[in-house]
Amino acid sequence: MKMGSAASSIASNSTQIVAVTPKDGPESIESHFDEAVSVFGVLDEVRKGELEQTDAYIVACFGDPGLYAARETTRAPVIGIAEASFHMATMISSRFSVVTTLSRTKIIAEHLLKNYGFSEHCRRVRAADIPVLDLEKDDGGRTLDIIISECLRAKKEDEIGAIVLGCGGMADLTPIISKEVGIPVIEGVTAAVKLAESLISLNLTTSKYGDWAFPPQKTLKGSVHSLSITDSYQQLNRRYISS
Amino acid sequence: MKMGSAASSIASNSTQIVAVTPKDGPESIESHFDEAVSVFGVLDEVRKGELEQTDAYIVACFGDPGLYAARETTRAPVIGIAEASFHMATMISSRFSVVTTLSRTKIIAEHLLKNYGFSEHCRRVRAADIPVLDLEKDDGGRTLDIIISECLRAKKEDEIGAIVLGCGGMADLTPIISKEVGIPVIEGVTAAVKLAESLISLNLTTSKYGDWAFPPQKTLKGSVHSLSITDSYQQLNRRYISS
Amino acid sequence: MKMGSAASSIASNSTQIVAVTPKDGPESIESHFDEAVSVFGVLDEVRKGELEQTDAYIVACFGDPGLYAARETTRAPVIGIAEASFHMATMISSRFSVVTTLSRTKIIAEHLLKNYGFSEHCRRVRAADIPVLDLEKDDGGRTLDIIISECLRAKKEDEIGAIVLGCGGMADLTPIISKEVGIPVIEGVTAAVKLAESLISLNLTTSKYGDWAFPPQKTLKGSVHSLSITDSYQQLNRRYISS
Amino acid sequence: MKMGSAASSIASNSTQIVAVTPKDGPESIESHFDEAVSVFGVLDEVRKGELEQTDAYIVACFGDPGLYAARETTRAPVIGIAEASFHMATMISSRFSVVTTLSRTKIIAEHLLKNYGFSEHCRRVRAADIPVLDLEKDDGGRTLDIIISECLRAKKEDEIGAIVLGCGGMADLTPIISKEVGIPVIEGVTAAVKLAESLISLNLTTSKYGDWAFPPQKTLKGSVHSLSITDSYQQLNRRYISS
Amino acid sequence: MKMGSAASSIASNSTQIVAVTPKDGPESIESHFDEAVSVFGVLDEVRKGELEQTDAYIVACFGDPGLYAARETTRAPVIGIAEASFHMATMISSRFSVVTTLSRTKIIAEHLLKNYGFSEHCRRVRAADIPVLDLEKDDGGRTLDIIISECLRAKKEDEIGAIVLGCGGMADLTPIISKEVGIPVIEGVTAAVKLAESLISLNLTTSKYGDWAFPPQKTLKGSVHSLSITDSYQQLNRRYISS
Amino acid sequence: MKMGSAASSIASNSTQIVAVTPKDGPESIESHFDEAVSVFGVLDEVRKGELEQTDAYIVACFGDPGLYAARETTRAPVIGIAEASFHMATMISSRFSVVTTLSRTKIIAEHLLKNYGFSEHCRRVRAADIPVLDLEKDDGGRTLDIIISECLRAKKEDEIGAIVLGCGGMADLTPIISKEVGIPVIEGVTAAVKLAESLISLNLTTSKYGDWAFPPQKTLKGSVHSLSITDSYQQLNRRYISS
Repeated sequence: MKMGSAASSIASNSTQIVAVTPKDGPESIESHFDEAVSVFGVLDEVRKGELEQTDAYIVACFGDPGLYAARETTRAPVIGIAEASFHMATMISSRFSVVTTLSRTKIIAEHLLKNYGFSEHCRRVRAADIPVLDLEKDDGGRTLDIIISECLRAKKEDEIGAIVLGCGGMADLTPIISKEVGIPVIEGVTAAVKLAESLISLNLTTSKYGDWAFPPQKTLKGSVHSLSITDSYQQLNRRYISS
Repeated sequence: MKMGSAASSIASNSTQIVAVTPKDGPESIESHFDEAVSVFGVLDEVRKGELEQTDAYIVACFGDPGLYAARETTRAPVIGIAEASFHMATMISSRFSVVTTLSRTKIIAEHLLKNYGFSEHCRRVRAADIPVLDLEKDDGGRTLDIIISECLRAKKEDEIGAIVLGCGGMADLTPIISKEVGIPVIEGVTAAVKLAESLISLNLTTSKYGDWAFPPQKTLKGSVHSLSITDSYQQLNRRYISS
Repeated sequence: MKMGSAASSIASNSTQIVAVTPKDGPESIESHFDEAVSVFGVLDEVRKGELEQTDAYIVACFGDPGLYAARETTRAPVIGIAEASFHMATMISSRFSVVTTLSRTKIIAEHLLKNYGFSEHCRRVRAADIPVLDLEKDDGGRTLDIIISECLRAKKEDEIGAIVLGCGGMADLTPIISKEVGIPVIEGVTAAVKLAESLISLNLTTSKYGDWAFPPQKTLKGSVHSLSITDSYQQLNRRYISS
Repeated sequence: MKMGSAASSIASNSTQIVAVTPKDGPESIESHFDEAVSVFGVLDEVRKGELEQTDAYIVACFGDPGLYAARETTRAPVIGIAEASFHMATMISSRFSVVTTLSRTKIIAEHLLKNYGFSEHCRRVRAADIPVLDLEKDDGGRTLDIIISECLRAKKEDEIGAIVLGCGGMADLTPIISKEVGIPVIEGVTAAVKLAESLISLNLTTSKYGDWAFPPQKTLKGSVHSLSITDSYQQLNRRYISS
Repeated sequence: MKMGSAASSIASNSTQIVAVTPKDGPESIESHFDEAVSVFGVLDEVRKGELEQTDAYIVACFGDPGLYAARETTRAPVIGIAEASFHMATMISSRFSVVTTLSRTKIIAEHLLKNYGFSEHCRRVRAADIPVLDLEKDDGGRTLDIIISECLRAKKEDEIGAIVLGCGGMADLTPIISKEVGIPVIEGVTAAVKLAESLISLNLTTSKYGDWAFPPQKTLKGSVHSLSITDSYQQLNRRYISS
Repeated sequence: MKMGSAASSIASNSTQIVAVTPKDGPESIESHFDEAVSVFGVLDEVRKGELEQTDAYIVACFGDPGLYAARETTRAPVIGIAEASFHMATMISSRFSVVTTLSRTKIIAEHLLKNYGFSEHCRRVRAADIPVLDLEKDDGGRTLDIIISECLRAKKEDEIGAIVLGCGGMADLTPIISKEVGIPVIEGVTAAVKLAESLISLNLTTSKYGDWAFPPQKTLKGSVHSLSITDSYQQLNRRYISS
C-alpha cells in the first residue's frame, strides 16, 4: 500500500508504521456518505490498536473521518492527514491552495478548513476531477499530469506560496509533483507521521479532560456492537494513568 | 416513543409520522463517539425509507448525526432537529441560548452553530448535566426541575429572548418548560416536522446538483455492506426525476 | 397581485392570506432609500393587522425592511421573505447563490446574509440588472429570459446546489425558472408562508422578553404620529397573555 | 439643544453647526421601532439641507438610523455618531466598551459594531439602564452617577483602554465622565463633527458610483410623498458635478 | 519630500507639519522585512518628537509599521496611513478596493484590513506591480498611467464605490488619479493628518490604561540602546498628566 | 539558558540546538514596544545563522516577533513558539486556554490567535501577572505557585482540555505544571523544536514563491545597516536551489 510506504519512508528509525485498511467500508472516499460509512472502520482499527498499545494513530483520508470520535476512544494522539497538511502549510507559506480529486468533495475540505481555523490561509480548494482510484491505476502518467496541471494553475492564479494535496492517494506522487510545480507541496500522510512522532516526543496525549474524555460506558446494538465501550475497554486505557 | 408522539401531535392531518429507532447503535448519544456510531443506523433507516417512498426524514438527535451523508442518499428532504430549532429560534428572538444534557456535548452544539451560521445568534450553550436516559425515567420531576432551573438561569443571565432545548428527549417536556420559564422554548423534533412539511409543500427537495448529489456507485465491504450504493438503489431514486 | 396569489396557492386550507400593498411608500424597492421609506408602510400594516388579530405577518420585499421594528410591535410572528428563502435554501443545498434585480441592491442582500448568519452558505449575490417593475410588464418573456440566463450562469459558475430568487416580484415565475434551470429554486414569499404557518403550529410567537419586547410607550410627532405606541395599543397586544 | 452646543463647541471656526430636531418622529430612540420611525425625519432634514447646500450631515442618534439611505440622497458626507465614535476609539485604544442607556438597545449597538467591522475592538456593550430622556432631567446628578458607575465597572472588568458613550444625549456629560473615569471617553456627536470636517477638507464626498448612487427617480405614495425622488431633486444634486 | 507637502497642503493653519525621514532603515518598504527594519526609525523619531512635545505622529508607510509600539511610547495620538485611509473610505463608500505597489505587499494590507476590522469593506487588494521608488522617478507619466489603469480595472470589476491608494508615495498623485478614475480616491497621508487633528481637537490621546500604557522601564542592549525606556523618558511623558 | 536546555532535552539525537540571545534588544519582552525592538536581534541572528547553514530557526518569544520578516530572509523553516504551541494544542484538545505573564501582553496573544486562525480554539488568554524575569529568580517556588494557580483556574472555569504556557521562560517548568494541573500543558520551545525537525524531515522549506520570497535587494541606512540585503547575501541563500 503506497500510503504505508510513504509513511514508512519518512518515519524515524524508532517508529514502526503499521498500515491497515479497515475491513469494513468503501474502497475510496468521494462523498459525505463515503466519509460516514468509513468511520466504523476507523473506530474499529483504533480499538484493535489499543490492544496492541499503539502509540499514535493516523487517519489517512483527507476528510479526517471520525477524528474526534477516535480521539475520545484513546489517549494516544490521533492525527488526520488534512489537519496535518494544513498545519504544516501555514508554517512555510502565508497562503496555500488545496488540490483534491473530485469537485464534490471540495465542500468537505472547506468545512475542515473552517473548523480547524485555516479558512483564511487557504486561497482556494481546487479539484483535478479525477476519481480517487484512478490514482492507483497505471495510466502512463495521465492522472499525474492532470494533477500537476491543476497545481500549476493554482500557482499561477491563486497568489499562494504552497500547495496542499487533498488526497492520501497522492502520497507517493508528492516528490514529482513538487519538482514539477516548483513550490512547496505538502502531503498529509507524511506530515501526520511527523506530527504524531512530535506529540509523542513531547509526551502530549489526547486530553481526557473535557469533551474528548472517554465516551460514557455503553452497549451498542446491532452491527456496531463490537465497538461498545465496556468496562474492560476503559480499563485497557487506564494503562496510561499508571504509567 | 415520546419523540414520535411529539412529532405526531404537531404534524398536519395529511402527514403520517413513522417513528423508528435504528436497530444498530447506542441507546443515547452523549459523545462524538456515540454520534459517529449512530450514523450507520441513520443511513440504514433512510435506505429503508426510500423503499417505502418516504417523503421526508428527520434525524432526531440534537447533534444532527449523518445529516449530509443522509441527504446525499435521497431526494427527500432530511432535517436535523438541531438545525430545525436554530432556524425557528432566530425568527422569534434576536438571541437565544441552548440548554442541553451533558457538558461534554456542548462542543457538538457549538460546532453545529458555527457550521450552520448561527454562532452569533446563540449567546451560550448550557448543560443541565443530566444523562440523556434520565429523561426517560420517572424520577418525580427531579430531572425536569434541573432543566427548568438551567433555563431560568439562561433567561436571567444570557440576554436572550428564547431557549432552544438541546436534546430530542426533551420533546414532551417542552410545554411545561416553556410555561415555567415564561419565554419561548423551541424544541427540535416538532420544529423539524413543520420544516419538513414546509419543504414538501414548496416542492423543494434535496438538491442533487453539486455536493449533495447521489454518492458514486460503490460496493461497501464488511459490516456496512448493506448500505452499498448499487445501481438498483440509484434507480429507486430516479423515481423523482420521472415525476 | 401576484405575490398574494403565490402566497395563497401555497397556503394551507386553514390559512387565509390577506395581501396588502401599503398605501404609503414607493412602488418598488431598489435602494437603501426605497427600503427606508417603505418601513412606514410595513409598520402601518402591522398596526392595522393587530386590530384584526392577524396571526402572522410576512414582509414581502427581499430586503426585509422594518423586520425587527415590526416584530417589536406584535406578538405574532413576522417573517421576511429574504430570511425565509435563506433558511429553506440551507436545508436542501450546502451552498446557494442569490439572483436579484438591480446591481445596486446586491449590497442589501449581502448585509442580510451577514446579519442572519448565512454569508458562507451563499456563494454569490448576482443581479440580472432589470428594474423591479419590469417584472410586472408583459414583455413577451424577455425579462424572464434574462433572469433564467443569470440563474444558468450561477448554476454553471458558482458551485451551488440551489438558487434563491432575490425579489418578491419573481414569485409567480418560480416554477418556470426552476424548470428551466434544473436545480431547486427558492422563492421567499411562498417560503415565508410556510414558515409563518409552522411557527403558529408550534405555538411560537415573537419573544416579548428582551430586545423585541414592545417598544416603550411614546407619542410620535408629525407624519408618523399614527404609529404612536399608546396605552391602548399595548392593551391590544395583551390579548396574547390572557389566552 | 445640548447636542448642538457640544457640536458647536468642537467645530472649527469656519464650520457652522445647524442643529435640527426633525419635526416628525419620536422624542427619544429606545427600540428598533423608534429607530425605524425616526428615519423619515432624518431623510426629511437631509432633503431640506440639500436646498441650503449643506456641506455635511450628522445623524445624531447612536443607532445611526437611516445612514445608508441618507447617503444615497446626497453627495455631502453623512456621518453617524456611533460609527464616528467607533472609528475614533480604535485609534487611541486597542479595545473599548460601549456604555449605552437601555439594555434593549444593546443589540442595536452590537449590530452596528458587526456591520462596521468593530466587533472585536469592542469588549462589551453595557447599559446603564436609564431612559434616554432622563439625560435631559435635572435630577441632581443621579443619572450622571449611574453612568459613571457603569463606566467604572467597564474600566475595571472589561480589559479596555477607552469607553464609547452610547447615546447622543450624553454629549455634554463627556468631560465630567472622562475626568471621573480616568480613561479616554469618546462621544459621538463631537467625533462626527471632526470627521465630517475632515472629509470636507479632504474633498471626499459620498461616492455616487455603486450602491450609494442617487436612488432611482420615483414618486412615493402617501405620507412619505414629500420625500419623492424627483427630477428636480436630482438636478439639485448635480451641482456637485459642475463644480 | 512630497509626502510632507501633501500633508502640509491639507493641514489646518494652526497645524505645523514636520516631515522627517528616519536616519535608519530602508529607502522604501516592499516586504515584511523592510517593514520590520523600518520600525527602529519610527520609534526613534517618536522619541525625538517627544522631546519637542509633538502633538501627534503619523506613520507614513502603508503597512503602518510599529504602530502599536509607537503608541505605547507616547500619549500623543499616533496614526498609520493605512488605517487612516480605511476609516475614511468606509464613510463615503460601502465597499472599496486597495491599489498598492508590489504584489508581495498585498498580504500586508490584507493583514491590516483583518486586524483593523475592515476585511469585508475591502473587495480586493490590487497591485500595480511597480517598485515604490519608481513613484519618485520622472518617467513621463508611465508609472502614473499604470496606477490609473489598475484603478480603472478596480472600478470596473470590483463592485466598489471608492479606491484606497496603498502607498504613501502616491500622495501627490491623488488628485490626478481621482480625476481620471472618476470615483473617490483616498490617500492615507492626508487622511491621517485630518484624523490626527481631529483627535487633538477632541482632546483624545492614546490611552495609557491597559495594553498601550508606557512600556515597562527597561535598558535595551546593543544597537537599539538609544530607545531604552528610562526613568527620565517616562518623566517626560508625565507632562500630559499635569496638564 | 533554560530555554536552550529545554530545547536540547527534546531534540532528536541528530539535531544540534544552538541557543543564542541576541546581543541587541530587551532582556525580556513585555509590551508591543519590547516586541518591536527585539526584532532587530531576531533578524541579526538569522543572518548569522545563514552563514553557518543553519537548518531551521526558532523564535523563542511567545509574541513570535519578526516571524514573517525572518522567513523572508531564509529558506530554512522559521518557527515561532506561540504558533508551535497553538498547533500542538489543537491536536490534543478541542479547546485550550493560554496562561501568560503580564496582562498587558494578553492582547499580543489574542492578535496571534486571530492571525493564525486559532481564535475559536482558545477559550481565554489569562495572565498570571508576573514580570517575565521573575521566572528566572529563585523565589522558593512562589512564581511557580502563581502560575499553577492560574492554570487550575483555567482548568476549572474555561471548559478546556489543555493549557498553553504563554512565555518561553516557563519552558523548564512545564513538567511540574503539567503534573500539578492534571491536564496536558503545552510549551512552545519544545513544540517548536519538534515542528522544525518535522519540516526538515519532510523536506519542506519556507516558500520563496510569493510574499515570503527574499526581500528586494536594498541597502539599509544607519543602525540597521548590517542587515542590508546585498547581492552576496542573496547568493548565500541560493545554496538551497543548487541542492
